[in-house]
Amino acid sequence: MNLYDRLTLDIEQHIRDGVLRAGERLPSVRQACRSQRVSPSTVLKAYYQLESRGLIEARPKSGYFVRPRLRQPLPEPQITRPVGDATELNVSDFIFEILESVKDPAVVPFGSSFASPHLYPLAKLGRYLAAAARHMDPLSTVTDLPPGNEELLRQIALRYLTRGAAVQPSEIVVTSGAMEALNLCLQAVTRPGDLIAIESPTFYVGLQAIERLGLRVIEIPTHPREGVSLPALTDALRHHPVKACLLMLNFQSPTGALVPDDRRRELVELLRQHEVPLIEDDTYAELYFGKHAPLPAKSLDTSGLVLHVSSFSKSLAPGYRVGWVAAGRFAQKVQRLKLATTLATTVPVQIALADFLRQGAFDTHLRRLRGVLEVQETAMAAAVERHFPPGTRVARPRGGYLTWVELPPQVDALALHRIALEQGISIAPGPIFSAKREYRNCLRLNFGHPWSDEFENAMATLGGMIAEQI
Amino acid sequence: MNLYDRLTLDIEQHIRDGVLRAGERLPSVRQACRSQRVSPSTVLKAYYQLESRGLIEARPKSGYFVRPRLRQPLPEPQITRPVGDATELNVSDFIFEILESVKDPAVVPFGSSFASPHLYPLAKLGRYLAAAARHMDPLSTVTDLPPGNEELLRQIALRYLTRGAAVQPSEIVVTSGAMEALNLCLQAVTRPGDLIAIESPTFYVGLQAIERLGLRVIEIPTHPREGVSLPALTDALRHHPVKACLLMLNFQSPTGALVPDDRRRELVELLRQHEVPLIEDDTYAELYFGKHAPLPAKSLDTSGLVLHVSSFSKSLAPGYRVGWVAAGRFAQKVQRLKLATTLATTVPVQIALADFLRQGAFDTHLRRLRGVLEVQETAMAAAVERHFPPGTRVARPRGGYLTWVELPPQVDALALHRIALEQGISIAPGPIFSAKREYRNCLRLNFGHPWSDEFENAMATLGGMIAEQI
Repeated sequence: MNLYDRLTLDIEQHIRDGVLRAGERLPSVRQACRSQRVSPSTVLKAYYQLESRGLIEARPKSGYFVRPRLRQPLPEPQITRPVGDATELNVSDFIFEILESVKDPAVVPFGSSFASPHLYPLAKLGRYLAAAARHMDPLSTVTDLPPGNEELLRQIALRYLTRGAAVQPSEIVVTSGAMEALNLCLQAVTRPGDLIAIESPTFYVGLQAIERLGLRVIEIPTHPREGVSLPALTDALRHHPVKACLLMLNFQSPTGALVPDDRRRELVELLRQHEVPLIEDDTYAELYFGKHAPLPAKSLDTSGLVLHVSSFSKSLAPGYRVGWVAAGRFAQKVQRLKLATTLATTVPVQIALADFLRQGAFDTHLRRLRGVLEVQETAMAAAVERHFPPGTRVARPRGGYLTWVELPPQVDALALHRIALEQGISIAPGPIFSAKREYRNCLRLNFGHPWSDEFENAMATLGGMIAEQI
Repeated sequence: MNLYDRLTLDIEQHIRDGVLRAGERLPSVRQACRSQRVSPSTVLKAYYQLESRGLIEARPKSGYFVRPRLRQPLPEPQITRPVGDATELNVSDFIFEILESVKDPAVVPFGSSFASPHLYPLAKLGRYLAAAARHMDPLSTVTDLPPGNEELLRQIALRYLTRGAAVQPSEIVVTSGAMEALNLCLQAVTRPGDLIAIESPTFYVGLQAIERLGLRVIEIPTHPREGVSLPALTDALRHHPVKACLLMLNFQSPTGALVPDDRRRELVELLRQHEVPLIEDDTYAELYFGKHAPLPAKSLDTSGLVLHVSSFSKSLAPGYRVGWVAAGRFAQKVQRLKLATTLATTVPVQIALADFLRQGAFDTHLRRLRGVLEVQETAMAAAVERHFPPGTRVARPRGGYLTWVELPPQVDALALHRIALEQGISIAPGPIFSAKREYRNCLRLNFGHPWSDEFENAMATLGGMIAEQI
C-alpha cells in the first residue's frame, strides 16, 4: 500500500472510531507533513481521497473538516423473521425485470451484482489468455473435458490448502461460473418437489435455480452480521424433510453477513447429524477486509457432505465465466451432470487462469482489491448515514461489495426501484431476495465501484425519495 | 483447391463410379502428366494421397493399381424399426462409461464424437482471441450478458440469411455449446414427464438431456440416408401427446442421414398443424460435401415453432464451447433460462469469434474442412468394405464426419467395444444411441481424422474381431 492510501486509511479509522469527530478540523497540510513525515503532495492526495469519499470537506480559507453526521451511526438491521412454511417458487419473471434494469452502463449501479470491471486485471489476464490461445495443445480440446484442465484443478486444490481444506483435484469440477455450479449441486442432491433450506434474505440466483428445478424452500431467519440462525435451522431440520441447505457463510448476498467461526463448526456438525448436504456458495470469500481469510465450512467437513462452490467472477476475472465446485461425496454425480448439460468450460480460458494462478499474480491483485473495497464500504455507509432518513438501519459487512439497508417500515422498495430508475439510479429491492417477496422496506446496495460525486448525488436523491415515502 | 487435390478427387470419383475398376492399372506418371497437363510432382502427390487412403496400391516395378475390393460395394443400413411405446430414460451411466473410454488420445478415435482438432484453425483463432482479450471493453463483462455479444449475434444472424432463414439477432441466445442450447430448449418447451419424439437411433446427448429433465421419449423409425420417417412421425403425433420433437435433419448423428428438401417442408407443415415445437439440432450443417448447404427447417418456419440449435464446436472452434439457439417464439424463455443456469458465455471468446466471422475467415476454413472430410469419408467406407465381413451394411453420409454401420445380427457391439478397447481402438456401440438400448449389432464410426496406416490396421483388427463373432 502506498503512503497516501495508508494515511487515508489511518484518518478514516480515526473518524470511524470517533477520535476525529464531526465538524473537527483536520491537521493543516503543513502540520500533517511534519507529524506523519510525508510530503505535502501525499497529504493532499489523502485529503482529496477522504473528500471524494464524503468523509471530510474543504472550507475555503479554513482547511479540511470532518463532515457533520446528521446523527449517531446508524444501527444494523435486525435478525429477520421470515414466514415459516415451505414455499413453491414463482419469482423468476419478477427478478428478471429488475436485473434487466441494471445492465445499462449509464445507470448508477447500486443495484448491480457486479463490482466495477475496472477493479480487475483484465489487461493482464488478456495477455495470459493470448498466450494460452496461441500455445494450446489442440488435443486439449478433447482431454480438458470435465472435470477440467488438469493444471487449473491443481491450482484450485492448492488454494483450498491455504484455506484449510484438503481437496483433491479429482473432487473438483470446473463450471461456467458459480451459477452453473449451484445448479449442478442442487440437481445432484435433490429431486423435483424436495425441500431446500435457505437464508432469508437470500441471493436471488439460488431462488431462480430452485424454481427452475421445481424445488420448494424453507427460509431460515438470518442475522445481517452473523448470518443464518442455527437455532432456527435446527428447528427446521427437526420438523421438515429438508433435503439440502444452500448457504453463504462468507459475506452473504444480500446482507454481507459473516458467520462466526464457532458457529460454522456447529453448523457442519448439525448437518452431519442430520445427514443433510450443505451447498456452500463461497463466491465472496476472497474479498475479506480483515487480516485472515475466513475458513469455508468445507474445511470442517469430515463426511463429504459439503459441496463447496466458488468462482473467479467476483475475485479475478469477471466475464470469463469460470467457476467450480468441490462436491465431496457428490463429485462424480456433479461431473456427470456437467457432461450432460454444458459438456465443458472454454478450454483456452481455463488454461489462462491456471497460468495466472501458477505465476502468483492472483494474490497481488487480491490484496489491492480488498483494500479498495474496504475503503468503498466506508464511503457507502457514510453516504447512507448522511442522506437516508432516521429509522434507517445499515449493515457493515467486513468483506465483499454488497450491503443491506433496512428502511423505515412505510417505505416500499419496489416503488423506490421504479422511481429511482427513472432518475438513472438502480437499487436491488428487498423482495427479489425472498421466496415470499418479503423485505419490502429493504434494499441491497452495491459498493463495488470507486466512489464519486455522481454516487454521492445519487445517494442524496435516493434519500430524498425515501423521505417522501414516510 | 490445389491441383493435386483436384486430381485426387477426380481419380477417386472414377474409382467410385467404376470407371477405374479394382485391379486396374492407373496411368503412369508420365502419361498422367501429359493428359492432365500437370507436373510429375503433382501426379505423385495425388497418387500418394490415394494410396494413403487405401484406394490404390503401388506394385514394385509395375506402377499403381486400384486396390481390389473384396466384393461389391456394401449396401446401406435399412430403415430402423424401434419398439414403439414411450420410454423413461436410464441411459446416462451407461453412456458415460463409453464416453470416458474415448478421451484417451492414445486410442484410435473411431468412437469419438469429435473430429481431429488439427483440422481447425486453432492458431489463427488464438490470435483473434488474444486481440479480443487485450482490447476488450471492461464494461462488456456486464453488457455482454445474455443474449450475448452484440456483434456475434449480428454475425450469426447474417449466416442465417445465407441459409435462407430470416432470424433477428434478438431471437438468438449464445450458449456454452450446442449441448447447453439443447438443454435450454427442452426446458423451455416441456415439463417433467412430457413426451418427446426423437429419431431412432439418436444422438446420446439428447437422451442424456431428456433423462436429466425427467422427460419420456417416443422413438421414430429413421432411415440412414433420408432421416426420420414422416409417416411414422405423423402416426406418433396422432396417437401420443408429443410435446416436442428433437431432430437432426442434416448429417444426423449417428447415421449421417440428410432429410431430402421436400420432406423437410412436409415436416415443418406437419408440426405446424399439430402445434408441436421442433428443436432442430443443426450442428453438422456446415460440413456438407455437395455444392450447396442444406437448408435448415428454420428457413421454412413461419410460425416460430422451430428452435434452431447450432454451435462452432464442430465447424470452427472445438474447445471454445460456443453454441447458440434461435428459439423462435420461445426466445425470451430460453434467454431467461440461460440467465438462471450459466448466466453468460465467456465474453472474450464471443468477441474473438465475432471478429473471426466478420473478417470472412470462416468460409475459407470451411471449404478446406469439407474437402478433407469428404476424402476421409471415402477412406472409411473403403476400409469397411475391405475389412468387415459379408452381411455388413454401411451408410454413405454426404456431410459431417460420422457414419453408421450395421453388422450381421449375431454381432454384439457392446462386447466388440470392450475387446476393441483392450487393443486401443474405440468405437461407439449402437445401444448408446437408443433409449431402449437397441442397435446391438450397430456401430457409429468417426471419420473426422486424417486416414493413416494405424487406422487401416485398426479397421482390419476390428474386422477380425467381428468375424470371430459370427
